[in-house]
Amino acid sequence: MNYKDIREECCEANIALPRTGLVDLTFGNVSVLDAAAGVFAIKPSGVDYAALKPEDMVIVDLEGQTVAGELRFSSDTPTHRCLFLAFAEHGVRSIVHTHSRKAVAFAQAAIEIPCLGTTHCDYFNGPVPVTRDMTAAEVQGAYEWETGNVIVERFAELNPMEIAAVLVRNHGPFAWGVSGAKAVETAQALEIVADMALHSLSLNPTVCPAPNYLREKHFFRKHGAGAYYGQK
Amino acid sequence: MNYKDIREECCEANIALPRTGLVDLTFGNVSVLDAAAGVFAIKPSGVDYAALKPEDMVIVDLEGQTVAGELRFSSDTPTHRCLFLAFAEHGVRSIVHTHSRKAVAFAQAAIEIPCLGTTHCDYFNGPVPVTRDMTAAEVQGAYEWETGNVIVERFAELNPMEIAAVLVRNHGPFAWGVSGAKAVETAQALEIVADMALHSLSLNPTVCPAPNYLREKHFFRKHGAGAYYGQK
Amino acid sequence: MNYKDIREECCEANIALPRTGLVDLTFGNVSVLDAAAGVFAIKPSGVDYAALKPEDMVIVDLEGQTVAGELRFSSDTPTHRCLFLAFAEHGVRSIVHTHSRKAVAFAQAAIEIPCLGTTHCDYFNGPVPVTRDMTAAEVQGAYEWETGNVIVERFAELNPMEIAAVLVRNHGPFAWGVSGAKAVETAQALEIVADMALHSLSLNPTVCPAPNYLREKHFFRKHGAGAYYGQK
Amino acid sequence: MNYKDIREECCEANIALPRTGLVDLTFGNVSVLDAAAGVFAIKPSGVDYAALKPEDMVIVDLEGQTVAGELRFSSDTPTHRCLFLAFAEHGVRSIVHTHSRKAVAFAQAAIEIPCLGTTHCDYFNGPVPVTRDMTAAEVQGAYEWETGNVIVERFAELNPMEIAAVLVRNHGPFAWGVSGAKAVETAQALEIVADMALHSLSLNPTVCPAPNYLREKHFFRKHGAGAYYGQK
Repeated sequence: MNYKDIREECCEANIALPRTGLVDLTFGNVSVLDAAAGVFAIKPSGVDYAALKPEDMVIVDLEGQTVAGELRFSSDTPTHRCLFLAFAEHGVRSIVHTHSRKAVAFAQAAIEIPCLGTTHCDYFNGPVPVTRDMTAAEVQGAYEWETGNVIVERFAELNPMEIAAVLVRNHGPFAWGVSGAKAVETAQALEIVADMALHSLSLNPTVCPAPNYLREKHFFRKHGAGAYYGQK
Repeated sequence: MNYKDIREECCEANIALPRTGLVDLTFGNVSVLDAAAGVFAIKPSGVDYAALKPEDMVIVDLEGQTVAGELRFSSDTPTHRCLFLAFAEHGVRSIVHTHSRKAVAFAQAAIEIPCLGTTHCDYFNGPVPVTRDMTAAEVQGAYEWETGNVIVERFAELNPMEIAAVLVRNHGPFAWGVSGAKAVETAQALEIVADMALHSLSLNPTVCPAPNYLREKHFFRKHGAGAYYGQK
Repeated sequence: MNYKDIREECCEANIALPRTGLVDLTFGNVSVLDAAAGVFAIKPSGVDYAALKPEDMVIVDLEGQTVAGELRFSSDTPTHRCLFLAFAEHGVRSIVHTHSRKAVAFAQAAIEIPCLGTTHCDYFNGPVPVTRDMTAAEVQGAYEWETGNVIVERFAELNPMEIAAVLVRNHGPFAWGVSGAKAVETAQALEIVADMALHSLSLNPTVCPAPNYLREKHFFRKHGAGAYYGQK
Repeated sequence: MNYKDIREECCEANIALPRTGLVDLTFGNVSVLDAAAGVFAIKPSGVDYAALKPEDMVIVDLEGQTVAGELRFSSDTPTHRCLFLAFAEHGVRSIVHTHSRKAVAFAQAAIEIPCLGTTHCDYFNGPVPVTRDMTAAEVQGAYEWETGNVIVERFAELNPMEIAAVLVRNHGPFAWGVSGAKAVETAQALEIVADMALHSLSLNPTVCPAPNYLREKHFFRKHGAGAYYGQK
């Protein structure tokens, strides 16, 4: 097996990152899961996006072992693996991690991104949450794996297909979706709504979220059985 | 009839949106009215701007029925239709909807864009207003049509040719004009003045609007019988 | 006489405006003086920068009459003329007007741009001042000429070669210099220092200006007889 | 000797500056040291980046004398020289000076860039410090040399390889590294973390720094003997 499909989908999604403006230097990576094969493709660590080819993607199994690929996998690989183990059953097939600047600003301020308008509601059915502080033991132990754990813990009562992103405190965003392209689009939408929210909060620090009925109208206009946005 | 003229004008104006920086992803659409024929052309829903061709534009009549075109029309079509029914008599021939970021920031904060300087006065003869909150019944009913209604309600005592834009609360801007090109230009000017106002308010939260005599001087220097800006 | 030299210098400087990011839509114009001939070249009103050719520049004398050129001159022409009459004796040969966004933010907030650091000191030997409110009579009378007058009034005790820019209240910046290229560079520097000051003030609203000795060191390192910046 | 290697490394790093968006106009310069030869290459003063060629780099010895090159060296050369004398023993081979806007905003506000998240920790093992005010005597004396001295003074108890940048008060950033490319990358990272911190502070003016254990985990994940980021 050479995992051609997930290598290509993963490579294309990684290459899209700098074009979207989400990624400075090499601060971002995308993974794509083949659930049937029990493996995922992920960006190699610290390699420039411009040079990436499908064969550079590292294939990792759900126990965290490299099963194909010459390069060292992204140092964030255990976080991706932890999220696939928890979220794949909800339909998550791709995970994107970036340090996109406005989303990071919220993560650093430990403030969730409030749902202030329909741009947000079109993508996220509620505020984008922030994880709790990680303990010294978690950071000094299996840090990247524990990063996944605090995300999963934060989603105990959230549906990852309705809130398809999170802010890791003092770190930055992870977003996900049913494909590499969708996960990247969600990461873009996240940065856009963070930017808009930052300015709304600057204009009005006590601004109220959009009403629940507006949020649900917009979210379900684009997602689920009753969606009527886009072409059939 | 194939509505070639409005298809081309509408397609060109839609294609202009990403070039202006007003539109992220697919968050925007333009319509163009043929008042004599009682129809308007509008962007199809969820289609990338790069791929748009005049024949993709959907032709819709003023009762909201598709009269030509293979694709599903933009989900915002009822809002455009409602505005044409109310504003066409004032000379409005084209409507632009975007989620341009600074204008959205004001819409989400429920703060009108104050008229702080001549850039604003050159385009808008007063502050750019915000609509009222929509009720649950309006949102859960004919939502996009009701969005048009709250705009029209807000303009009960405003001239849509003097204030050629509005901010829909918790949503974003609509702008309009006598042509696709003019409506897009007005949407650009709206975003620019929102950006400037955001920073002026950050510098001085109690900043005063420009004097009325300055506002009128600039607006009528560019609009109406006494205009002397541009070439004859 | 066909004023070839000032037409070319003026055209080139106008064309530079959108490339610098200082100008949105058609919000900006440059003029260049031929003091010996008693005329200046200026951009025609409301014409796109991309289409400008040297022969489109309008040649205007110091009484305000068009002496050559087919097009209508910029509506801001009387302001430029007023400034040449007052400042040419100090060496001003070119004037740039833009609505560059951060400088406009200060003009709208009626706050001078404080001299906070060496980027500012390299170009301006003190804060960039704001003009007073114009009266209704001034605005309703010879508005553009009176705009020049309030600038000249503000410079009663300032040297226009040491402070080569001004913010017209509720309007935006004018900058100037010994050539079209220098005036455009000063307009760029103005926008840059406005941007930096905006963020410094956001971080620390009671920030102090740079010490006078630092300001003078930097200004005179680049200007005047003792300058030692750049090549000989 | 023609110092071909440091000329090329220095030229390439200077040319990279405008491409990174760190530099407006000609506000920036890079130097590269050849420690064995006791000389460094540096950008000539006030020359456009687009036109730079390796042979334009000025070669200066550690006493400050030009030993090769036709052009006048950057006016900031004595600052670079002072830093090489103090920091070369720690492994610093290249120094970058820019007026990148967000870093300047902190320098002008006299506020250090706090270590708020992992983007910062990946590059700097602590806050990026601000130098003290320079005295009138320092500014009016050997100004650029004294600028280096206040930086060295600020690093009395800091390791320049763990904190590879500084903000000179009322001025702007210097960054450094083991090569021209690394120093430029650090200058980029500095501007990025300044941008993120500015927005985090706007959201939450009393935001806390990242915990020490998180900072150290990230810094030493990328630097030193235990690093596991990137390819072997």
